Amino acid sequence: MSFDYSSFFRDDLPAAANAFTGFPAYNFIGGHNDAGSVPVDALTQALARAMARDGQHLATYGMNGGAQGYLPLRNYISEMLAARAGMPTDPGDILITTGSLQGLDLVNGALLSPGDTVIVEDVSYAGTLGRLRRHGVTYEAVKVDEGGMCMEHLAGILAELRDKGVRPKFIYTIPTVQNPSATIMGVERRQKMLDLARKYGVPIFEDDCYAELIWEGSRPPTIRSMDREGQVIYCGTFSKTIAVALRVGYVVADWPVLRRLMPLKTDGGCGALEQMALAEYCPEHYAGHVDELRRILKGKYDVMTGAMAEQFGASAEFAQQQGGIYLWVTLPDSVDTDKLAQIAGAQGVAVNPGSDWSADPDAGRHRIRLCFGHASHQQIRDGVARLADICHGEFGVPQRGANVER
Amino acid sequence: MSFDYSSFFRDDLPAAANAFTGFPAYNFIGGHNDAGSVPVDALTQALARAMARDGQHLATYGMNGGAQGYLPLRNYISEMLAARAGMPTDPGDILITTGSLQGLDLVNGALLSPGDTVIVEDVSYAGTLGRLRRHGVTYEAVKVDEGGMCMEHLAGILAELRDKGVRPKFIYTIPTVQNPSATIMGVERRQKMLDLARKYGVPIFEDDCYAELIWEGSRPPTIRSMDREGQVIYCGTFSKTIAVALRVGYVVADWPVLRRLMPLKTDGGCGALEQMALAEYCPEHYAGHVDELRRILKGKYDVMTGAMAEQFGASAEFAQQQGGIYLWVTLPDSVDTDKLAQIAGAQGVAVNPGSDWSADPDAGRHRIRLCFGHASHQQIRDGVARLADICHGEFGVPQRGANVER
Repeated sequence: MSFDYSSFFRDDLPAAANAFTGFPAYNFIGGHNDAGSVPVDALTQALARAMARDGQHLATYGMNGGAQGYLPLRNYISEMLAARAGMPTDPGDILITTGSLQGLDLVNGALLSPGDTVIVEDVSYAGTLGRLRRHGVTYEAVKVDEGGMCMEHLAGILAELRDKGVRPKFIYTIPTVQNPSATIMGVERRQKMLDLARKYGVPIFEDDCYAELIWEGSRPPTIRSMDREGQVIYCGTFSKTIAVALRVGYVVADWPVLRRLMPLKTDGGCGALEQMALAEYCPEHYAGHVDELRRILKGKYDVMTGAMAEQFGASAEFAQQQGGIYLWVTLPDSVDTDKLAQIAGAQGVAVNPGSDWSADPDAGRHRIRLCFGHASHQQIRDGVARLADICHGEFGVPQRGANVER
Repeated sequence: MSFDYSSFFRDDLPAAANAFTGFPAYNFIGGHNDAGSVPVDALTQALARAMARDGQHLATYGMNGGAQGYLPLRNYISEMLAARAGMPTDPGDILITTGSLQGLDLVNGALLSPGDTVIVEDVSYAGTLGRLRRHGVTYEAVKVDEGGMCMEHLAGILAELRDKGVRPKFIYTIPTVQNPSATIMGVERRQKMLDLARKYGVPIFEDDCYAELIWEGSRPPTIRSMDREGQVIYCGTFSKTIAVALRVGYVVADWPVLRRLMPLKTDGGCGALEQMALAEYCPEHYAGHVDELRRILKGKYDVMTGAMAEQFGASAEFAQQQGGIYLWVTLPDSVDTDKLAQIAGAQGVAVNPGSDWSADPDAGRHRIRLCFGHASHQQIRDGVARLADICHGEFGVPQRGANVER
């Protein structure tokens, strides 16, 4: 007889996990990336060099760099942010995290108590929205248009909250290649957001995980780079540029903030080999690798949008975008995407339902998020055709596609 | 002017971290290990082989193994636990964690609410005691003697708690090479503990991080191996056998428990390179490496106990031990080890004060924990001499050492 733990578990636990049964045939969910782009050989060689130099430091927690992470990697991130994001950064203001996800947990853990209020974009990262709910936090959602978070709406919400005596704990934004909308906030709005944050005395939490995936040209300066007062807490990652499974992200914040986050990181540090490999690989290879990755992702984007247009025709609406790995699609009102995602998932076509990526789940009920980063061109074409078939079978749309009556 | 976060932080945060300023000259704190023993070349070569085979999987979360971790590593752990710990284990009952520390956090997070009661050993891992306090949990401490946790005392506490209507959430034990006492619980006590846990319907949380560091012979079977009902949750690690900075540990539990822990692991997985390197390195090298490491640690133990006897004479009491990396020392009542640790630390000799490793801090006030895993033989000798000087200067003991009047 098995011991019964049911009365031992906390009563506020999330739903139990299911066992992994392999990836779906057509995998358009999550943030998986292009397998062929992983710089396997160069990373391996870089690690070998770093190991020959620093391998014995593996015997010590923090590898002679302390709890903030491997110093050569923090030095590289510092230079990279200055050169590519317009954000000169002291390596002492960087904390290496297990992906940006641990960064979210640390910032939330330091700032949020049940009953707090946070401001988010009205479409946003499901993982953030879920975390906020688990913290018992109320979120106010600001409209996102083609230029990102709308500053007039933000101003209105901030004024309204002040009138109610509510000071939000932070404004959470993904300003560059927003998830899921792929919008890119212009410099003017960034400045305006900072001005509003100053006026109302509210911190900004800038999640910049996708900023490097702009197809062409350079990324805008970060909001934190425009801030001289440490009001912006920033996180980034190597997940979307090098490889998600490495789990190397970072939080950038002024020291008075960072030193409050660090004690919440109770895992004794992040994986050393990834930190060593990246610190050695990036100075020589990062820029060229990202250029090549962008080219590949743009190619997949073209295939994805072409397939959607061909298969769904006017039934699927989506904006032109300038970067990223997701297509954010609006389907007709007759399509319940929670149901579509469930049915399609059972048939090997995995898509994310829009409700999970919407501050108001109902508002996302006819939307889906499609990741085009991982699937091959052929898988994208076949998977979208399959999705259109399933959607047609269940909801009657798309009515016709590829000039073929369904 | 810097933005003031003070009113934004939660009011229950731990003390702020300090910036890392380098390791002390004589480093007897923490769980650092022998630098020369890190199998740098073999790990590097193992990773290169694994990368050549599986490197492209880095583009996907979980690397085709799902959220429980890299399957080849779980397969190895499964075989290793069967062969070395008498514990046949299904790879599906293993969750890879960022060191065993994340395992502690997951188990605590699933089971503990403020006001709960947990049973611990009266000397125990400071990180566990601190975690329990942060969870707002009361702990009842069971006496540890030379054979580990005393079962009569445990029986008494369990009966007492039942009389008070309190059901503890779990019994936390480090049965093999206990931290800090280095005691090894015999098979009979293990069975007795399991019987008591059954009788009172209380889970056991078995922390087995040091079990491989027994100088000679094989480790005892784990408590979990004697359990057929899934009442024991188990954690282990590669930190103490291969390298602490890798941050690879694991939780073993029956699936109904594991699936409740997994959603609390919100970091998107553990570092892939460590998992790949270990999965490839261990089948061929693990056993031989651990044998060699034990030999080196036993050598350091001999140097440490020799130096302590020479420098502290009868002023320092410690038991003979059979494994591990720590010496648990009792000094005369006149020595306040909180103060000693502070003063010695400021002079480059870092030691852990016994209060942190004691369920009742006062009971540990004359004790220190010395890690002999990291320092060289010469550093151990010099550091202990330095410590004796400092202790003599501050507290008048040891009065004489090494046949020299101080």
